[in-house]
Amino acid sequence: MIRVGVNGYGTIGKRVADAVAAQPDMEVAGVAKTQPNFEAHTAVERGYSMYAAIPERAPLFGDAGIETAGVVDELVADADVIVDATPSGIGAENRSLYASYDTPAIFQGGEDASVAQVSFNARANYDDARGADSVRVVSCNTTGLSRLVAPLEEEYGVEKVRATLVRRGGDPSQHSRGPINDILPNPIEIPSHHGPDVQTIFPELSIDTMGLKVPATLMHVHAVNVTLESDVTAAHVRQLLEDQSRIYVIPEGLGLDGAGKLKDFALDAGRPRGDLWENCLWGESIATEGRDLYLFQAVHQESDVVPENVDAIRAVTDSADAAESIERTNRTIGVGLAGDPSGFNDSQVEAEAADD
Amino acid sequence: MIRVGVNGYGTIGKRVADAVAAQPDMEVAGVAKTQPNFEAHTAVERGYSMYAAIPERAPLFGDAGIETAGVVDELVADADVIVDATPSGIGAENRSLYASYDTPAIFQGGEDASVAQVSFNARANYDDARGADSVRVVSCNTTGLSRLVAPLEEEYGVEKVRATLVRRGGDPSQHSRGPINDILPNPIEIPSHHGPDVQTIFPELSIDTMGLKVPATLMHVHAVNVTLESDVTAAHVRQLLEDQSRIYVIPEGLGLDGAGKLKDFALDAGRPRGDLWENCLWGESIATEGRDLYLFQAVHQESDVVPENVDAIRAVTDSADAAESIERTNRTIGVGLAGDPSGFNDSQVEAEAADD
Repeated sequence: MIRVGVNGYGTIGKRVADAVAAQPDMEVAGVAKTQPNFEAHTAVERGYSMYAAIPERAPLFGDAGIETAGVVDELVADADVIVDATPSGIGAENRSLYASYDTPAIFQGGEDASVAQVSFNARANYDDARGADSVRVVSCNTTGLSRLVAPLEEEYGVEKVRATLVRRGGDPSQHSRGPINDILPNPIEIPSHHGPDVQTIFPELSIDTMGLKVPATLMHVHAVNVTLESDVTAAHVRQLLEDQSRIYVIPEGLGLDGAGKLKDFALDAGRPRGDLWENCLWGESIATEGRDLYLFQAVHQESDVVPENVDAIRAVTDSADAAESIERTNRTIGVGLAGDPSGFNDSQVEAEAADD
Repeated sequence: MIRVGVNGYGTIGKRVADAVAAQPDMEVAGVAKTQPNFEAHTAVERGYSMYAAIPERAPLFGDAGIETAGVVDELVADADVIVDATPSGIGAENRSLYASYDTPAIFQGGEDASVAQVSFNARANYDDARGADSVRVVSCNTTGLSRLVAPLEEEYGVEKVRATLVRRGGDPSQHSRGPINDILPNPIEIPSHHGPDVQTIFPELSIDTMGLKVPATLMHVHAVNVTLESDVTAAHVRQLLEDQSRIYVIPEGLGLDGAGKLKDFALDAGRPRGDLWENCLWGESIATEGRDLYLFQAVHQESDVVPENVDAIRAVTDSADAAESIERTNRTIGVGLAGDPSGFNDSQVEAEAADD
């Protein structure tokens, strides 16, 4: 059993902890938090040992009725792997802590690529992370683009990617973020940082990205153009993408016309927190013109990196190969069968059955 | 004096009427409305003769204290040119009315291109409309793209345009439209209808467009890629665009980071209704990579077609050439000096002085 510590128990950390707990080859050694907020209470109810991320604040947990198992250093010492899910920038500050205990660390995409030896996407470069001391799971948007680029590159070759990222302004709980009623080029400068971030996974890729922020909280939406190295048909691309386990090709006729309905669909299916771990890619949007491919996909910023974190844990511990890890992660947390709306539900049913 | 009737006095019609009233060579023969709402009262206060667009409803105007000069047929008979600013689809129904009186008609971009002999953008194809019986001023988005494509095509040649249109969900007054908190591919199919609409202006142009709708009301934002026929520098493109009278290249340093601040800027400058008739194009977004040009621009859906309607009136009456008409329209309504933030205000000051 791989004992996994989760440092930072917010949007990503709490999801990663639950996903780790669902793995047959992993257990949650504990989670560390800075403050005893509502999420801390949920962690205790789920049976995760709580560690104080800031030792001086440890008494606050006791005051709030939450028993702590120690401070974060003890969790790092005890764990086989640490997943750092702290806010952007804090991960880099924690790096020396993890190194001092020789505990392999998984960082998140909000950190600079320099935080870790390898930037990681399971579909694209799992093997690069095998046995590494530190790995950075790339951001939600970069994960979504990497899952798309990998099969296209393998099957057709990619000459150039041009993507416009219409980003949600903040997560549902981030009430102090904006915009309200505006469409912001963000960053105004082109290209945005997203393209270079994708190049941490595909160093040779030619990619230009443009970013915007809009008044929405549920998912990002990508308008993607890929100039391929060979002529293709939309049907051929669709089949290729439907064969990807972490791409859900939205079938026509279900009325899934935006992020709101996708979230409803996931919640109706009983998915935890209504999470959408897969790229949600509109099948009817797939269009080709010569070597130019176009499509729309939505990316759930709160959850698409969760299965990637689980795979990164297996990579750094070198405890499974890519295919084994991805299959096990998908099966245990319930990542849907691509392109199959019934499978979207069935996989969840299987996952629930597996939990019993 | 060209006597102009305006049929439909809503978002576009009321702005066109005011712009026509500001022209030294035009006068407002009257405006027609279906109902005596708040806009009808404003029309009366501005001195426009009111005609009932639906004869059976004429008494409602009297009940509301608004004197009518007659019904819309009489306005059509009296006017030298009719601007049809009725809701999308109604213009086509009105076509036979205008033809029956041999009154040249200007339609809006919500109609199919087949509604008129010529689709129109003053910068791109003014001469095609000279002396025509019917002209369609293309939609706000198509106008914004056409103003951009015309100089690029002339200066460099355009191999291909790829544009993602991040569209406002509705105008500020359209409270029953959405989305709220969603990012909708719209249409989901690619390419969207916008590309073919631009081709009504540039029949030979290769253009693929992707459309989305988001929870915003102020302006559309376009993320544009143009593959040119020759290598260019961003500085050269910027100079070219700054020389266009209906493109406002937003200078760095003013803090104009989105539609909200652009609207504030226009309102602070005293522009009528805070209108932004120009493409508002972020100078610092202009980027080139070889023959690939990228940029962001915002388009004010309520007003960018207004100067185009004025020019279309001169075209169908063959009363000025393109350069004369564009210059006169810009000067009289106060279209800003491209790329010059002080000019943005000065032109308005001049326009106000001209009104005295």
